[in-house]
Amino acid sequence: MSLTQAYAADAAKAPLTPFSLQRRAPGPEDVQIEILYCGVCHSDLHQVRGDWGGKGIFPMVPGHEIVGRVSAVGAKVSRFRDHDLVGVGCLVDSCRRCDCCREGLEQYCERGGVGTYNALEYDGKTPTYGGYSTRIVVDQHYVLKVPESLDPAGAAPLLCAGITTYSPLRHWNIKAGQRVGVVGLGGLGHMGVKLARAMGAQVVLFTTSASKAEDARRLGASEVVISSKPEEMKRVRKSLDFVLDTVSAAHDINAYLATLKREGTMVLLGIPDQPPMLQFQHLVFQRRQLSGSMIGGIAETQEMLDFCAEHGIVSDIELIRIQQINQAYERMLRNDVKYRFVIDIGSLREA
Amino acid sequence: MSLTQAYAADAAKAPLTPFSLQRRAPGPEDVQIEILYCGVCHSDLHQVRGDWGGKGIFPMVPGHEIVGRVSAVGAKVSRFRDHDLVGVGCLVDSCRRCDCCREGLEQYCERGGVGTYNALEYDGKTPTYGGYSTRIVVDQHYVLKVPESLDPAGAAPLLCAGITTYSPLRHWNIKAGQRVGVVGLGGLGHMGVKLARAMGAQVVLFTTSASKAEDARRLGASEVVISSKPEEMKRVRKSLDFVLDTVSAAHDINAYLATLKREGTMVLLGIPDQPPMLQFQHLVFQRRQLSGSMIGGIAETQEMLDFCAEHGIVSDIELIRIQQINQAYERMLRNDVKYRFVIDIGSLREA
Repeated sequence: MSLTQAYAADAAKAPLTPFSLQRRAPGPEDVQIEILYCGVCHSDLHQVRGDWGGKGIFPMVPGHEIVGRVSAVGAKVSRFRDHDLVGVGCLVDSCRRCDCCREGLEQYCERGGVGTYNALEYDGKTPTYGGYSTRIVVDQHYVLKVPESLDPAGAAPLLCAGITTYSPLRHWNIKAGQRVGVVGLGGLGHMGVKLARAMGAQVVLFTTSASKAEDARRLGASEVVISSKPEEMKRVRKSLDFVLDTVSAAHDINAYLATLKREGTMVLLGIPDQPPMLQFQHLVFQRRQLSGSMIGGIAETQEMLDFCAEHGIVSDIELIRIQQINQAYERMLRNDVKYRFVIDIGSLREA
Repeated sequence: MSLTQAYAADAAKAPLTPFSLQRRAPGPEDVQIEILYCGVCHSDLHQVRGDWGGKGIFPMVPGHEIVGRVSAVGAKVSRFRDHDLVGVGCLVDSCRRCDCCREGLEQYCERGGVGTYNALEYDGKTPTYGGYSTRIVVDQHYVLKVPESLDPAGAAPLLCAGITTYSPLRHWNIKAGQRVGVVGLGGLGHMGVKLARAMGAQVVLFTTSASKAEDARRLGASEVVISSKPEEMKRVRKSLDFVLDTVSAAHDINAYLATLKREGTMVLLGIPDQPPMLQFQHLVFQRRQLSGSMIGGIAETQEMLDFCAEHGIVSDIELIRIQQINQAYERMLRNDVKYRFVIDIGSLREA
């Protein structure tokens, strides 16, 4: 066991404060990682605040966008060695036996995978603690190689925001020349724009904020549509092959369905509190498809990291010290971040 | 021109009464058809009653499930000759130039196809009159060959109910051994059961009426689920590859989405007055797809008729005389028909 510094919430809605936890000594299949950076995902905030119902496991150490360097490996680990730059995303275990796991779709594991934090290991009692900490020990199957050419701080959000947008773009086979809409320019949306652009698509960014237009173009969008303006929405009617909807607040999905060509697909990534109404005619009259997608499998996450290295893609981040985390959460509630906070875990070691 | 007997509604919600109309003399591309049978589609009722908004074109002669025999052909018609058994479905024209028309998907024609009734020809002034009439003249491209081995009365509903269910089953590539759910056992649903079964699928029929269970099994369902009973719905949770939802009344689609396996597809055929709520988690957590489909193209309608001949499939019908049509509409409002009224157009000639 090793004593590890962290920041934790003691109860739902409590601020994050310094906390110490024990990480297990690496077993034969384990990789021990000294964490360098951890991205701050919106779901960290939701889980700390108990927004998703359920009790939550407290003290809770959030963080599932982890980049660090290997400091020890178990006897059966051959793919990783000391000092390797590695990443850990949303999952640290899954059943490995169901069809999903066998197909490399661990995110849909039928037993339910083990989340990187706010979950119990399969022993039913050991809580998992996330990346707002100096060290983590993870089974090698759930550890990713992070290409050295990537900025490690900017790479951290790839482990969740990156794979969550990459996976549907790949699954629905986005190709050069296609017109891809991205709804929302936040942590997910800005990655969606970069990735779709790197795949050769023409990207149309939908936003309610006219102020984001310039940034969207810088990130790779060739067109920006202010979604609150019906005449702008009408301009792109029936013009898109694919729409990636990254918004989790309640919103009108029908307006976006109408921007799809016949047989186009719109993929939902968020889950609003209030289920929106669906006007069937948008599907029936044009044989369009509506689907959803959740993070991505381990092999696909590695593929995404390699793709990002090849195309020089990382997240646009604002680096913070761990001591600023509560303030960062407040700014996230106001959507005041471009586009992801990443914690410099060095600040936790100094403390 | 030829004087043709028909039944028409003079205004929205008016009863159908005898009416005479002129059919054009067959042009070079036309096929003149003496109508034998015409199915009574729920959309006939909706259009006569003005349920879908818009004004409607009155007098209105409904009917787009037409079977008859050729009595004359134009000079450029080589595929049809006198006495051939033929059919006409929902469309009598489309632009023939857009991508949809070129791909044989005339139902999605970008100009908007010309409906068999309650529409204007592309001249912008000539109303179309449907199959509650003794004769119709239709461009050869929109005329189907009805195999002589099919009962012509039972074949009439194939032209709408048949193709509307066949097209999505084919588009989504339903194969032997798959588990296919069909929601609702009406005109569409009972065809969906027969067709999916003939494609080799194991069919699960969802109905609110326990009294329909025996019939559903006779038609080809291997399992019947009473959708109002949560424990029955739970039994088939995550067990279906595909669901064909034939219900156009408002209903909870989420419960059916939950019956799909990961990546399964549910296809909507109806459009409820009130748009239902969609719980995104059913799509996001299992990468399921929700789509819609509308009738089918001309080539696919021919394929469907040939498929039905090969498998000995027609609709289960109740044959009526044209004089019973208003009473039939009332019974349809009470769902009192197994499973399609078909008008014996001979009764119109006698009158």
